[in-house]
Amino acid sequence: MSAIKPVLVVAGARAGGTGAATAAAFARKGYSLALISRGAEDLQALVDELKSAGSDATAFPVPSYSAPSISSVFQSIHTRYPSPHYSIRAALYNASHSIRKPFLDLTLADFHAAQETIVEGAFAFSQEIIRVFKENDIDADTGKRGFLIFTGSTTSIRGNRTTSAAAPAKWGLRALSQSLSKEFGEWNIHVAHAIIDGIINTPFSRSRFNDPPNWVENEDVRLNAEDIAKAYVYLAEQPRSAWTWELDLRPAHEKW
Amino acid sequence: MSAIKPVLVVAGARAGGTGAATAAAFARKGYSLALISRGAEDLQALVDELKSAGSDATAFPVPSYSAPSISSVFQSIHTRYPSPHYSIRAALYNASHSIRKPFLDLTLADFHAAQETIVEGAFAFSQEIIRVFKENDIDADTGKRGFLIFTGSTTSIRGNRTTSAAAPAKWGLRALSQSLSKEFGEWNIHVAHAIIDGIINTPFSRSRFNDPPNWVENEDVRLNAEDIAKAYVYLAEQPRSAWTWELDLRPAHEKW
Amino acid sequence: MSAIKPVLVVAGARAGGTGAATAAAFARKGYSLALISRGAEDLQALVDELKSAGSDATAFPVPSYSAPSISSVFQSIHTRYPSPHYSIRAALYNASHSIRKPFLDLTLADFHAAQETIVEGAFAFSQEIIRVFKENDIDADTGKRGFLIFTGSTTSIRGNRTTSAAAPAKWGLRALSQSLSKEFGEWNIHVAHAIIDGIINTPFSRSRFNDPPNWVENEDVRLNAEDIAKAYVYLAEQPRSAWTWELDLRPAHEKW
Amino acid sequence: MSAIKPVLVVAGARAGGTGAATAAAFARKGYSLALISRGAEDLQALVDELKSAGSDATAFPVPSYSAPSISSVFQSIHTRYPSPHYSIRAALYNASHSIRKPFLDLTLADFHAAQETIVEGAFAFSQEIIRVFKENDIDADTGKRGFLIFTGSTTSIRGNRTTSAAAPAKWGLRALSQSLSKEFGEWNIHVAHAIIDGIINTPFSRSRFNDPPNWVENEDVRLNAEDIAKAYVYLAEQPRSAWTWELDLRPAHEKW
Repeated sequence: MSAIKPVLVVAGARAGGTGAATAAAFARKGYSLALISRGAEDLQALVDELKSAGSDATAFPVPSYSAPSISSVFQSIHTRYPSPHYSIRAALYNASHSIRKPFLDLTLADFHAAQETIVEGAFAFSQEIIRVFKENDIDADTGKRGFLIFTGSTTSIRGNRTTSAAAPAKWGLRALSQSLSKEFGEWNIHVAHAIIDGIINTPFSRSRFNDPPNWVENEDVRLNAEDIAKAYVYLAEQPRSAWTWELDLRPAHEKW
Repeated sequence: MSAIKPVLVVAGARAGGTGAATAAAFARKGYSLALISRGAEDLQALVDELKSAGSDATAFPVPSYSAPSISSVFQSIHTRYPSPHYSIRAALYNASHSIRKPFLDLTLADFHAAQETIVEGAFAFSQEIIRVFKENDIDADTGKRGFLIFTGSTTSIRGNRTTSAAAPAKWGLRALSQSLSKEFGEWNIHVAHAIIDGIINTPFSRSRFNDPPNWVENEDVRLNAEDIAKAYVYLAEQPRSAWTWELDLRPAHEKW
Repeated sequence: MSAIKPVLVVAGARAGGTGAATAAAFARKGYSLALISRGAEDLQALVDELKSAGSDATAFPVPSYSAPSISSVFQSIHTRYPSPHYSIRAALYNASHSIRKPFLDLTLADFHAAQETIVEGAFAFSQEIIRVFKENDIDADTGKRGFLIFTGSTTSIRGNRTTSAAAPAKWGLRALSQSLSKEFGEWNIHVAHAIIDGIINTPFSRSRFNDPPNWVENEDVRLNAEDIAKAYVYLAEQPRSAWTWELDLRPAHEKW
Repeated sequence: MSAIKPVLVVAGARAGGTGAATAAAFARKGYSLALISRGAEDLQALVDELKSAGSDATAFPVPSYSAPSISSVFQSIHTRYPSPHYSIRAALYNASHSIRKPFLDLTLADFHAAQETIVEGAFAFSQEIIRVFKENDIDADTGKRGFLIFTGSTTSIRGNRTTSAAAPAKWGLRALSQSLSKEFGEWNIHVAHAIIDGIINTPFSRSRFNDPPNWVENEDVRLNAEDIAKAYVYLAEQPRSAWTWELDLRPAHEKW
């Protein structure tokens, strides 16, 4: 007779990034992993890596984070991780779209890409997740039917000269998370938002930035994805009397 | 030989509302009026009313606030108010989309409607306006090439139980305005955002709310569109040494 | 038979500064002026200047902005501008204390000086003013028994490396203004707060800063006290349906 | 040969409250406890309780949280927990002053009491603590010389009708924490602020509130001090790449 297996769903998982590190951290807590991402090949490589470390992980590649795409992928997730053997108990919306341009250089496609990946995807993802959570029982330890967290950034709280596409989307995501936190708290669904205020040490950022020269080595000046994941696990485990909607995370030496 | 005539462009103008009152207030300052709105018939009635009061106003009806729709209508505006006889010097983005629903009742269409009218429309409108403003000379009194204001609301700064569609859009609009304010200040383009924190006395709200019974008569408990318009005129006239990005406006007795 | 004369009370008035400019602006609207400040000699010079311009102004020097000092000076103000011939209808708390030091260099005296001038003084001033306002009748044009504004700064919304004495005081002042705005709105008393986000062109700042070299001449990079005063007059005149608690004011080219 | 023993200093510790629960939680991590509080008798009872549970705890009663009182008590702490045998590595400023009154009912003594306990005490406490922290070595696991956290509340971010004494103090405390976080991050000193947004289940609150009737039993509607303490321990252990300045904590069903 087997216990129900908890599942974490992540949208936006790339090897070496926050989504992947969060997946690995929840796997260590006994979760199965449903990983949604663009880039089927890279996603499969990540899943293979997680599996070779002993995790139960499945790749759910998507062509985009449009709402129809999200809806469709959730059908596959439910087929792969069916109730009552599996129970989706945690979810991370980590998909984002990096764009920094002068306002007048932005195309409508740029604007839509940010909106779709950051806001529309999160909206559709949240509807899928919260519908599932509402059917869950309340976990005795945490008082939760489920835990949903969104990854934000400095741009989530500050508009800037080159953020006229990104900031509207990231502020929108933050507003969604606050509205959901208020609406579903009484359902014992915990919704949270993390402001990542600094550069994360990922393959992507390592390929892009080399200033200051030693930033990768110096843990005081950039975030480890694993340390962000620790924060997400902590939040997932917060007991019902003291839940956090929002926290910021930044390196010790970050100027802010 | 005639002077150049200043033009105010308003997106979102309904008789009795903030857009209409702002148009009338700028008309009294000598502006011609380009009024963009849905509902061609109502818009024409408003334009007729403004014209019968001696204003130079033109209706630019749109089927929606989608970016293509906004681009298209600006072509008509430039034809009707051509440079150098006319100069667009002020713009108000007042279009909004009222939607309050539990999150799980929201359709994707609901979500898109809010995003399109509030964020995509504002994005496209701002690109049109700022391109024009950048070509303007700097007004000697105000130090401005142009003035662009966005109408926000309580929902712009607070997510709530039934605002999971509206809040992401209104926060997004606020983020856009802040990014533009920072990017174009050095171009002497003044971008502002107003948080209207209370019910406005409009035909629409009168038809919808009757609680408390005397709220229409009692100026202490709701906003007059004319008083919001006064604030917008004030902001438009602020001299270059002291520009406001954001102010809130609420009735004297509002609980907040 | 004479009409009742309105009085503006200013705490923190130095020649060439915001307090002085606000006094002059309200004088042009017909107000008598009660000016509270440290530095009796400078204050008298300012009053003389205002009087020579035709204003009715009186100097009320204080040794400090401690609460007892504020209470005592209000007795003198009531004696000089007695009811019912005079009516205090507007008040500006503009006193501040400029201190930027590394935290560990701050003495307790430094800390107290900031707290006393910025928070304690404002607390005592507000009690004096609101007690008077509550006895006033409601002005028909503005719907106000009185208007009370506080001058804030960038430090009011952002703590920084050298603001561990100033920021607690300025945030405290902002909190006071928000609490009072909420408590006394229903009394038709308008309480506002202005965030001055930039350097003001005053004799004091001219003596202190010379970077960039042309900052004094360039109205795009610093605030005129007169333009701040215009904002304060505008706020004082806002009609009851649309009052502002807070606005920011910054030069066109300010980086923020 | 004995290892250096880490010490937690708490200001504001009452049996059953956040300070006491935090002390107990850090004791379980191997910390000695220096507990500062008013009410010598109650404090001694708390210390006795902690000692009977096996903790090393010492009572440091103070007559008030005035700066001189804080300075004096730190001399005693250093005598009792001398370097190099002991090392102060963590500190909680949890002292507060509960006051809710209409503004005009507040006495200057009320105002000063809130300022002294909440802001002046925190200022003096922080100077003592940061001076010590700067001499510490950097902990290999967390990247910290020390961890300093302040307890805030709903009033820390929102002024209200009856908070014109409390809000200026609590906003001031928050500003202090933000300034210190920015100044001392590069010293590897972690400064944090927690917004406790709800009622805490303490002997004090149980004696004061009985609405709704079952609030004490229902963990969904109020905070456990132990759960706040868990958050503080979590923050203390955050690794250097991802530190939080601020998080909020509220019960699952809290309306906000």
